[in-house]
Amino acid sequence: MRAVTYVNHNTVEVLEKPVPEIGSDEVLLRVGGAGVCHSDLAIIALGDENPLIGGTLGHEVAGTIAELGSEVAGWSVGDHAIVSLILSCGQCRECLAGRDNQCEVVYPRGALAPLSPGIGSPGGMADYIAVKARHLDPLGELDPVSAAPLADAALTPMHAINTVRDRLTGDATVVTIGLGGLGHLALQILAATTGARVIALDTDPEKLAFAAAHGADLVLQSDGGAADRILRETGGKGADVVFDFVGVQPTVDLAVAVVRGGGAIRFVGLGGGSFPYAAGTATPLPWGVSIERAYGGTRADMRQVIALAEAEKIAVEVVRYDLADAVQAFDDLHHGRVAGRAVLVP
Amino acid sequence: MRAVTYVNHNTVEVLEKPVPEIGSDEVLLRVGGAGVCHSDLAIIALGDENPLIGGTLGHEVAGTIAELGSEVAGWSVGDHAIVSLILSCGQCRECLAGRDNQCEVVYPRGALAPLSPGIGSPGGMADYIAVKARHLDPLGELDPVSAAPLADAALTPMHAINTVRDRLTGDATVVTIGLGGLGHLALQILAATTGARVIALDTDPEKLAFAAAHGADLVLQSDGGAADRILRETGGKGADVVFDFVGVQPTVDLAVAVVRGGGAIRFVGLGGGSFPYAAGTATPLPWGVSIERAYGGTRADMRQVIALAEAEKIAVEVVRYDLADAVQAFDDLHHGRVAGRAVLVP
Amino acid sequence: MRAVTYVNHNTVEVLEKPVPEIGSDEVLLRVGGAGVCHSDLAIIALGDENPLIGGTLGHEVAGTIAELGSEVAGWSVGDHAIVSLILSCGQCRECLAGRDNQCEVVYPRGALAPLSPGIGSPGGMADYIAVKARHLDPLGELDPVSAAPLADAALTPMHAINTVRDRLTGDATVVTIGLGGLGHLALQILAATTGARVIALDTDPEKLAFAAAHGADLVLQSDGGAADRILRETGGKGADVVFDFVGVQPTVDLAVAVVRGGGAIRFVGLGGGSFPYAAGTATPLPWGVSIERAYGGTRADMRQVIALAEAEKIAVEVVRYDLADAVQAFDDLHHGRVAGRAVLVP
Amino acid sequence: MRAVTYVNHNTVEVLEKPVPEIGSDEVLLRVGGAGVCHSDLAIIALGDENPLIGGTLGHEVAGTIAELGSEVAGWSVGDHAIVSLILSCGQCRECLAGRDNQCEVVYPRGALAPLSPGIGSPGGMADYIAVKARHLDPLGELDPVSAAPLADAALTPMHAINTVRDRLTGDATVVTIGLGGLGHLALQILAATTGARVIALDTDPEKLAFAAAHGADLVLQSDGGAADRILRETGGKGADVVFDFVGVQPTVDLAVAVVRGGGAIRFVGLGGGSFPYAAGTATPLPWGVSIERAYGGTRADMRQVIALAEAEKIAVEVVRYDLADAVQAFDDLHHGRVAGRAVLVP
Repeated sequence: MRAVTYVNHNTVEVLEKPVPEIGSDEVLLRVGGAGVCHSDLAIIALGDENPLIGGTLGHEVAGTIAELGSEVAGWSVGDHAIVSLILSCGQCRECLAGRDNQCEVVYPRGALAPLSPGIGSPGGMADYIAVKARHLDPLGELDPVSAAPLADAALTPMHAINTVRDRLTGDATVVTIGLGGLGHLALQILAATTGARVIALDTDPEKLAFAAAHGADLVLQSDGGAADRILRETGGKGADVVFDFVGVQPTVDLAVAVVRGGGAIRFVGLGGGSFPYAAGTATPLPWGVSIERAYGGTRADMRQVIALAEAEKIAVEVVRYDLADAVQAFDDLHHGRVAGRAVLVP
Repeated sequence: MRAVTYVNHNTVEVLEKPVPEIGSDEVLLRVGGAGVCHSDLAIIALGDENPLIGGTLGHEVAGTIAELGSEVAGWSVGDHAIVSLILSCGQCRECLAGRDNQCEVVYPRGALAPLSPGIGSPGGMADYIAVKARHLDPLGELDPVSAAPLADAALTPMHAINTVRDRLTGDATVVTIGLGGLGHLALQILAATTGARVIALDTDPEKLAFAAAHGADLVLQSDGGAADRILRETGGKGADVVFDFVGVQPTVDLAVAVVRGGGAIRFVGLGGGSFPYAAGTATPLPWGVSIERAYGGTRADMRQVIALAEAEKIAVEVVRYDLADAVQAFDDLHHGRVAGRAVLVP
Repeated sequence: MRAVTYVNHNTVEVLEKPVPEIGSDEVLLRVGGAGVCHSDLAIIALGDENPLIGGTLGHEVAGTIAELGSEVAGWSVGDHAIVSLILSCGQCRECLAGRDNQCEVVYPRGALAPLSPGIGSPGGMADYIAVKARHLDPLGELDPVSAAPLADAALTPMHAINTVRDRLTGDATVVTIGLGGLGHLALQILAATTGARVIALDTDPEKLAFAAAHGADLVLQSDGGAADRILRETGGKGADVVFDFVGVQPTVDLAVAVVRGGGAIRFVGLGGGSFPYAAGTATPLPWGVSIERAYGGTRADMRQVIALAEAEKIAVEVVRYDLADAVQAFDDLHHGRVAGRAVLVP
Repeated sequence: MRAVTYVNHNTVEVLEKPVPEIGSDEVLLRVGGAGVCHSDLAIIALGDENPLIGGTLGHEVAGTIAELGSEVAGWSVGDHAIVSLILSCGQCRECLAGRDNQCEVVYPRGALAPLSPGIGSPGGMADYIAVKARHLDPLGELDPVSAAPLADAALTPMHAINTVRDRLTGDATVVTIGLGGLGHLALQILAATTGARVIALDTDPEKLAFAAAHGADLVLQSDGGAADRILRETGGKGADVVFDFVGVQPTVDLAVAVVRGGGAIRFVGLGGGSFPYAAGTATPLPWGVSIERAYGGTRADMRQVIALAEAEKIAVEVVRYDLADAVQAFDDLHHGRVAGRAVLVP
C-alpha cells in the first residue's frame, strides 16, 4: 500500500509499504481521508535524527472497516469509524477520570507528545491502518473524507472550549483568533454550543467572511487596532475568554491585551509567541486570569464533536488532495494556500 | 484617634486623626485587631508620589461595632464583625455572579488593585474605622484580634484553593510552598477541606514543624533537592496542584518543575520570580497546565473562612503588637522575624 | 394611577391607586409592560383570606425611569430597566454566593414564595412602580414591552437550564415539554446556548411549528406515543435532561418515562402531576437521576437572559393587552387562548 | 473451591465449585476478603425464580493475584488488587466520560442493576475469582481483608458525596443518617475530604460514639426530635445536604424535613421509605432541592477511596468471618448484629 512517510528533515515521500497485519483486538481500516495538520509540518521540521523518521504520518484518520480481529465485538466490516487522536491506555487514573488526553501511560512526563497515529505509531496517510478497536469511534453516516479532520482540527478546539465552558455564558464575550484549520471549527463550535458573543479575528478577509457567515457576532481584522476595538466593544472591560489558534507574537500580545481580569486565555497555535509570566505585578496579564496551553482532547470531547457534525451544526471546510499528491498538500499548507483543512484521499 | 499612616516612601508613622463620621448606611467599628501584610510593605515601597500617601493602612480589620448609621439594619452595637477585603459594589455583573473580587466598579481594568480598606479607602490600623454595613461579615464569638487576618491571610488562600477545588480529590497531591502569613493558613485550609495529600515546603525548619503538626502529609525543605523528591513521591508524574505563596525565582522554578501535565499552579506570593510563557513548545510548563495569579477572594470565600475558624478547623498564628508599635511590626515583618501573622491591637 | 389588583378569590380589578412615593435608594419606574403569568392565576386562586389580597399584581415588569431617589447613582431618568423577580437582600450567604433566588431574608424556610413585585410587594401591572435601584437591571435599547416577560418567563427557564448545563453537551439529548409562556423561551435558550439535540413537545400543532422554526431539532406531539418515540430516538437509552414546563400528570409521567439513568429532570410547571419517590427500588425513576423543582432565577441568570435578548438570540412572543383590559388578559390566559406571553401595556 | 451460593429464596450455602479458568485478558485472584452487604440480603430476597439463583455472591472483593492471563500487562503474581463493583465496558459514551457506573453496555435501561461480581457474574465469596485485568485497581500495601469493603461500602458514599461536592463548602452543614456499613465510611469521607460541619445520626448510641470519635462535629439520636434540633442548629434554615443511608420511612421523612431550599438530598439506603413528589406545590420538599438515588460509583471515585485508605484517612470497621461461616454472617447482618462491615475471609 501507499504510505506518506517522513523520510528526513522537512521531507515526506509516498512510499510503498505492506498492508499491516492486525492483532486479535484490532481492526484494519481502509482509510477514507487523512487530514494534514500544522503539527505534521512541526514534526517533519524536527532535526534529522529522531525516532519518528521512517514513520507513516497522519493523525486525523477516518475510514471504513475492512477486516476485524478475532476478538473484536461491536463493529462490522463496512462501518465508518474515526481513529482516536491519542492512543490512550484506558486504565490509568487520568483515563478513568475522563482526562485521557493526559494518559499516564502513553503520555509520560517529559514526552514530546502522547502516542498518536503518525506520532510514534503508524499514521493514517496510507491506504490502510491497523488500530485497536477501542481506539475507534463510530461515524454513522458521516463521510470519512470530511470527517477525518474532526479527530484533531475539531477535537482540539472542543477540548480547549470545554476547559472554560462555565465562563461562556450568554452575557460573555469570547474572542477567537485565527480561522484556519482548527480556528474555523472553533468558531463553529462556539456558535453552536454557547450563547456567548463571538468576536472572530484573522488577517485574511476571506476567512473573516466565512466567519461572518458561520456564526460570528463580529469579525475583525487582526491588526494593530484590534485590541482597542475589542476593549471598546466590551465597555473597556475586555473579553471573558480568548482563544489563540495562531500563537505568533502579535496574536499572543493581542490575547494578553484584551482578556479581562478574572478571565481566561487558551493558547492552541504553536507559533512561539511569548511573554514574561511573573509572580507579582511584573507581568502584562491582569490578576485572576487563567491561562493554559491546551493539547488535543478527550474521548468524551470526541463524542461531542461527532454528534455536532452528524447534526450538521459544524462542518469541516475540506480541500481534497489525492493521497499521491501528499507532497503538494504539505507544500500548500506550509505556504498558507489551504483555506480550511487539506485532506488526503487514498 | 491613632492611625498608622503611610507618610512617604517606606515610612509609616502613627499619627493622630479625627474619629471618622459615619453615613446613614455605615457603622463605626472600634478596631480590635489589624493584620500587617507583605502587601502593606509593597504599598509603602511604591515611589514617593502616589495617591495612597497620607492614607491610613490596614486591610485586615476586625472589631466591635461602636455606632450604627441611621439606616443600618441587622447589626447591633457590640457585635463582632470583620471588614471585607474588597469594597465591592454588589451590583455589577461580577458581583451578582459571586465574583466580587473582580468587581467592575471598584476594580476597573488597569487599576493597581481593587478599592480596599487601606488601599484607596481609610484602613483599619487605627482606633476606629467607618465602613458600610454591607461590607461587614459577622464574627460571632470569634476574637477580633485573632480573626482580623482572616480578611486576607486566610481569604486569599481560600480563594486560590477554590479556583482548583475540583482537582483536589482524595487521590490528588497538592504542593504548597511557603508557610508564612498566608501559607500557614493555606496549609490548614487544605488539610481541613480536602482529602488530597498535602506536601508543604518552606526554608524554615520551625515552619515545617508547624506544618507537620497542622495537617501536612509530608513536609520538605524548600531547596535544590525538593523537585526531585516531589517527582519521586508522585511516581514521576508531578503534583496535581501547586500553590506558591512566596513567588521568588526558586519557588516559581520549583512550581513549574513539579506540576503535572493537566495540573494547575496558583501563584499568590509577590516575589517577582518569572519564566517565559510561550504558545507552542518553548516554555518549561507541561501541556494542559492551568496557571493563574490569584487575587484576594470573594464574599462567599469569606463566609467559608469564618465558618472554619468558628469550628476551630483553622486558626491564625498571631503575633500581637500594640498599635503604638506599628513601626516595629512593619520592621519585623520586613526582616522575616514574624512567625505567623503580626496583628496590631489598638 | 391604574393598578391591577387582586380583590378576592379569582377576581382582579383595575383600581385607581396613588402613584407611589420613592425612598432615597429607590426609583420611580413608568411601567412599559407587565407580563401575565400562570403564577398570577395561581395567586388569585388562593383562598379568600390571605395577605396578598388587595395587592397590585405583576412580577414581570419593565419600563422607563421617571424619577430618581436622592442617593441613587448609576441611573438616569429615561433609562430602560427591568425589575428583579426576587427582591433579594444582597447580603446573606446565599446572595453573596450568587444564589439569590434562595435569599435567606426574603425567602425564609416555609414561605410560600420569595418576596417579589406582585407577591408581597406592589407589582408592576400599574402605571408606575417604586423599586430599589439595586433591584433593576439595565435594558439598553430593548423595548420594555417585549422585554418585560424576560423577568420570569425567560429567567426561570434559564435558571433551570443552568442547573444542568454541564450535562447539555453536544452529544446530549434534551427533551422540553410545553411551549407556552416559559416553554417557548426555554426552547430558544436551549437552541441558543447549547449544542444538545433539542426535542420539543406540546399538544398544540401551532406551538410545534413555532418550535421547529426556532431551533428545535425534532418536534413531537405530546401524546401517548411520545415516550416510545423518544426512547427510539435515543437508541433506547433515554434523554439526558428533561424539562417539564407543564407539570400535569401526563407530562410528569412522560418526563419520568424518558429520562436516562444518571440524567436529570427539572420540573417547572405547576400542574400538580406527581409520582411516588422512594428510597430503594419502588419508584419509577432510574438510578442516578437528579430531579429538582426549579424556582425563579438569580441576578446572574438575568444578565444572561438580557444579553441574549439584546443579541436577538431569543425573543418573547408578545400578545399585547392594554392595561385597562387586564381582566380579559387573565381570562384568555386561563382558557389557554394566549400563544406566547400576554403583556399588559399601560 | 468453596463458593457462597444463592441457592434459593433467602438461602445461601457454601458449595464446592471448580476453580475458574481464566481468559487471556483475565487474572485469577485468590480472594483475601469479601464484604457482606445489605444488597446481598436484597438479592437473595428476590422471588424463587430469577437468573441470579445458583450464582456465587460477593461484590466487595479484594485479594492477591495468583495467575495472569497471557495478554495481561502491568500486573504481577502476588499483587494486591480490588475488583471493580461495576464491570463496565470502558468504551461507551458514559464510560469515556468517566460516568462508568452508568455504563450503557452492562447497565442497559430497565436492568435491575449493572453487571457486577455476584450480580450476573460470579462473585468473590469464594476461594478464587476470575476477573478481567482492566476491572482491577491496585491496593499497594493495603490488607485485602480490610480493603474489600472499599469496593462498595466506601465507593458508594464517595460517589454520592462527589455528586454534591460543590455544595460541601466550609460554611455548609451536612447531615448524614445511618452509621452502618456504608454510613460509617460516609462519615469518615465527609470528615476527611470536606470542611463542612457534619451532623451524624443513628439510633444506636455505640455508632454515635464511633461517629463522634471519627470526625462528626455533632452526633444526634435519630428520633422524633432530630428534625427540630437540626433546624435549630442551622438557624432555622436547614442543612445544605442530607445523605440517607437507611431509607426507611422515618429517615426519608427526616431528610425531607431538614433540607434547606436549594439544597440536596442523596438517598442511598434501600429501606423503601417514600413521599409524594409533585410538580408544583403539593410536595413536602422546598423549591430548588436536588434529590437523587445514588448508585455505586465510578472508577475515578474508587481511586479516591483507595488513596484515602492508603493515607489512613478512612478505615473500614471490619468484623471477620471465616468463609465457611458465611451463613452466620448473613444472619447476623440481617438481624443488625454487625457493627461496621462483615467480611468473609477464605
